Amino acid sequence: MDKKIKQKFSEVEAEIGLTPFLRALLLTDGSITTLLEAFTNREVKVAGLKQKTISSGNELAVELNINPDEELNEREVILSAGDVPVVYAKSYAVISRLGGDARNDILKTDVPIGKILRRHKLETHREIREIGLKHDDKIAGILNLNNDKILFRSYVIIQKNVPLMKIEEYFGRI
Amino acid sequence: MDKKIKQKFSEVEAEIGLTPFLRALLLTDGSITTLLEAFTNREVKVAGLKQKTISSGNELAVELNINPDEELNEREVILSAGDVPVVYAKSYAVISRLGGDARNDILKTDVPIGKILRRHKLETHREIREIGLKHDDKIAGILNLNNDKILFRSYVIIQKNVPLMKIEEYFGRI
Repeated sequence: MDKKIKQKFSEVEAEIGLTPFLRALLLTDGSITTLLEAFTNREVKVAGLKQKTISSGNELAVELNINPDEELNEREVILSAGDVPVVYAKSYAVISRLGGDARNDILKTDVPIGKILRRHKLETHREIREIGLKHDDKIAGILNLNNDKILFRSYVIIQKNVPLMKIEEYFGRI
Repeated sequence: MDKKIKQKFSEVEAEIGLTPFLRALLLTDGSITTLLEAFTNREVKVAGLKQKTISSGNELAVELNINPDEELNEREVILSAGDVPVVYAKSYAVISRLGGDARNDILKTDVPIGKILRRHKLETHREIREIGLKHDDKIAGILNLNNDKILFRSYVIIQKNVPLMKIEEYFGRI
């Protein structure tokens, strides 16, 4: 974890306090679904909210190391433990970098990314890019949060030395 | 996670009960050091107990997909959170499969495996091979456990479709 991320983590912790569970979810380089299942002792289900193909645009092109006109799969999902929504996640996958089998799984929004990577034994490396607090009415509504300081992080999943996807995760009460 | 591992996990949970922290440590495919730091809010330090080059022998050769006369780096370490020993870990790394930089880091026992993988941006996949309870007087002593049912798991770290190392982890009170 680089210095900037460590600093942001400390600032967030000082501002809102973090449970050990939230600390783990923010910092882990492993599957979020696995951790949520361990913490809650419930099966985690994924509900797809939206899925579409978009052109990356400049900002994502820089983050994903692609051309601005490259096609991305944009996906919004809610992870629920039992019936409780705990994480809202948004991902941008570089379609041309996805192998055929993994591509099919990702285009079906009901399979968590971590399970897709494991199922296809994809060898990857995760790099946290951002940790912070955000105001977002839609996400607050989904996660049943009253306050406007929604805890989030973003990271990239790297394969063959280039980003395969960027994921933003917003955390509810865990 | 395959069916056999899931079954073993349920048996262990039924026999000794597991905290959410232990469940996460048993099931994660991410760095254990990161999770321990998140759970305890302390820096995790590694103390090397032993390190030597061994010939793999038949059993490890099968698990690591190598010839029985291939050289392994065997390493025993204690991970402590603050001053409390929390995990005892034993690893077997296939020396010929380690890149030069990672090899140097692994030969210094004081750097946790997870940090080495991250530092060198190694793209890997982890596969849990075993979960269970074991009797071991030496490890019980190290982890300050009275009982003889020490919780453990083993997994392999896979890179370029072949095992890079096998790791056994024994868990204290977390």
